[in-house]
Amino acid sequence: MVSTATPPAPTGLQSVASVRLDLDRIRSAVFSIAPVFRNTPQYVCPPLSEMLGCELILKLEIANPIRCFKGRGTETVMTRLRNSGARAAVCASAGNLGQALAYSGRSRQISTTVVAGGTANAYKLERIRALGATVRIVDGDIEDARRLARQIANSENAFLVEDSENIDTCEGAGTIGLELLEGIGPIDAVLIALGGGAMATGVGYVFKCLAPQVEIVCVQPKGAPAMAISWRTRSIVETEHTDTIADGVAGRFPIPAVLDDLLAVADHVALVEEDSIIAGMRMLYRSAGLIVEPSAALGIAALLEDPLRYTGKRVATIICGGNVIPTDFERWVVEQKGE
Amino acid sequence: MVSTATPPAPTGLQSVASVRLDLDRIRSAVFSIAPVFRNTPQYVCPPLSEMLGCELILKLEIANPIRCFKGRGTETVMTRLRNSGARAAVCASAGNLGQALAYSGRSRQISTTVVAGGTANAYKLERIRALGATVRIVDGDIEDARRLARQIANSENAFLVEDSENIDTCEGAGTIGLELLEGIGPIDAVLIALGGGAMATGVGYVFKCLAPQVEIVCVQPKGAPAMAISWRTRSIVETEHTDTIADGVAGRFPIPAVLDDLLAVADHVALVEEDSIIAGMRMLYRSAGLIVEPSAALGIAALLEDPLRYTGKRVATIICGGNVIPTDFERWVVEQKGE
Repeated sequence: MVSTATPPAPTGLQSVASVRLDLDRIRSAVFSIAPVFRNTPQYVCPPLSEMLGCELILKLEIANPIRCFKGRGTETVMTRLRNSGARAAVCASAGNLGQALAYSGRSRQISTTVVAGGTANAYKLERIRALGATVRIVDGDIEDARRLARQIANSENAFLVEDSENIDTCEGAGTIGLELLEGIGPIDAVLIALGGGAMATGVGYVFKCLAPQVEIVCVQPKGAPAMAISWRTRSIVETEHTDTIADGVAGRFPIPAVLDDLLAVADHVALVEEDSIIAGMRMLYRSAGLIVEPSAALGIAALLEDPLRYTGKRVATIICGGNVIPTDFERWVVEQKGE
Repeated sequence: MVSTATPPAPTGLQSVASVRLDLDRIRSAVFSIAPVFRNTPQYVCPPLSEMLGCELILKLEIANPIRCFKGRGTETVMTRLRNSGARAAVCASAGNLGQALAYSGRSRQISTTVVAGGTANAYKLERIRALGATVRIVDGDIEDARRLARQIANSENAFLVEDSENIDTCEGAGTIGLELLEGIGPIDAVLIALGGGAMATGVGYVFKCLAPQVEIVCVQPKGAPAMAISWRTRSIVETEHTDTIADGVAGRFPIPAVLDDLLAVADHVALVEEDSIIAGMRMLYRSAGLIVEPSAALGIAALLEDPLRYTGKRVATIICGGNVIPTDFERWVVEQKGE
């Protein structure tokens, strides 16, 4: 007798309409990802642990050629794409996703196009070009760039990589969770930057399947709270604008399918102040010797704003990117001598 | 018939009186070292490669709890020591070795004492204490500290760990070479900071055994050239004083046995200016997002001073430490807006 019932959800998953993620696909993604993006450093940081009153584990996704975690997702996308015979890919990005897609395309002879809005940073665009991608600039913001990327996908038969919407990007990011589970011993909570949701859902899902007792804490800036508010209200909430230095997580239009995944895996979603993000960047610089972009300091910001929640616990946070312009870094982090 | 002749030296080794190093012992050291110090990131850095005109591979030894490579050596020492039943160890250090020994002792229940000179940095001493070592301060410099460390070793039956002289420290550092050979593809040269010589001889030996065509380039500051001059003259030369910001490699008394090892493995020894070290630190900060101590920038300094030697080649350098006081880093690297 063959059962046609939906299989039971893995332990720890919240009950929701549908979850796109699948543990076997995340496990298989490992083999799609170049070694340079895998098995990244993870270690207890003694000075930060003392300062924050918890045993703090840093998972470092910045020590690779593109200085962020997004290679895990684009490697997964592009390996599968190459196996399907595709020859071109396109994405909208003004930063980390564009670099990652360019990198993963170049090593697989898949041509890549990255579409950016007019306000995109010239330095980041130059890095994307240097990795071999065609860069297209549009008048307008990232939403206008997305529109052109979709047009290019249609007219040039290029595969459209939409971060978080494309499940491979979530599965690639989820491999971070597998590494944490394998290598760092028991932990009480994982603090994950929340933007579009690929990293939060991918990593969160792995823990909810394999170690459901670990609290999955997603952290978003108060200045870009669309996904956090959507999670809290259990329905899509868009915002008029964003106002945060954490450009890597500054979205306004949560994707319904990603929200469903997030509802299934997140135990807590924190919204943090800009000052806390800067304080987190400063602590990572002064006491851990790390240059990080604002998104990568969201976990520390949450620890600073809600210390009692984590006192005495063993907590991991993912340092997800280090692409910050030196002059910005110095203005935010270094020149605040008073603090 | 049993041959009593000395076995032939591995391919690529220069002919010298004696070499202490042994490939099997280096390979076995891998299993003595905690995972947190092994399989460190190694990757081509695209922006620095463009700027320096060669394909530059960074091997990152700063993403661990003590932010330097010395854990590889102390883990090797302390694992072997623990297997021998010893209960205490002592070293003279004002910095990285002290932190490393404290870390490796703590995880093996071996008590550690670190002796520092009176001018040692208070922040670094606090880090050593926080890792559980007893810190002793002596009037005088590191040589006075060495004297007290020897006394403690005798009077308290503690094992004396002398960096570079103790062959385990060289063998532990040599595991960096094994990882480079396994994971990064063919390279033309490796640039290695040269201080006491543990890293240069350990890594150099591995390459001379397994990939003798790779040029082993050791780099020392002009302000602390004792080992470099000794290598060039093939005999021990001591210096009256040192004058460099690269405190991690600032020795005055080369160890004869280490010089013999270095004579066997080094193809070239470069001496670099302080300005080049600072320029290297600045490039690593601005274009690779890395905070490094001066010793870790010696390889980049050598590339800057002698670019034609490396043009178009595939070159690796070991980023051996990131323990720099933020105010020093800012004075040297950040505040030079004009450059």
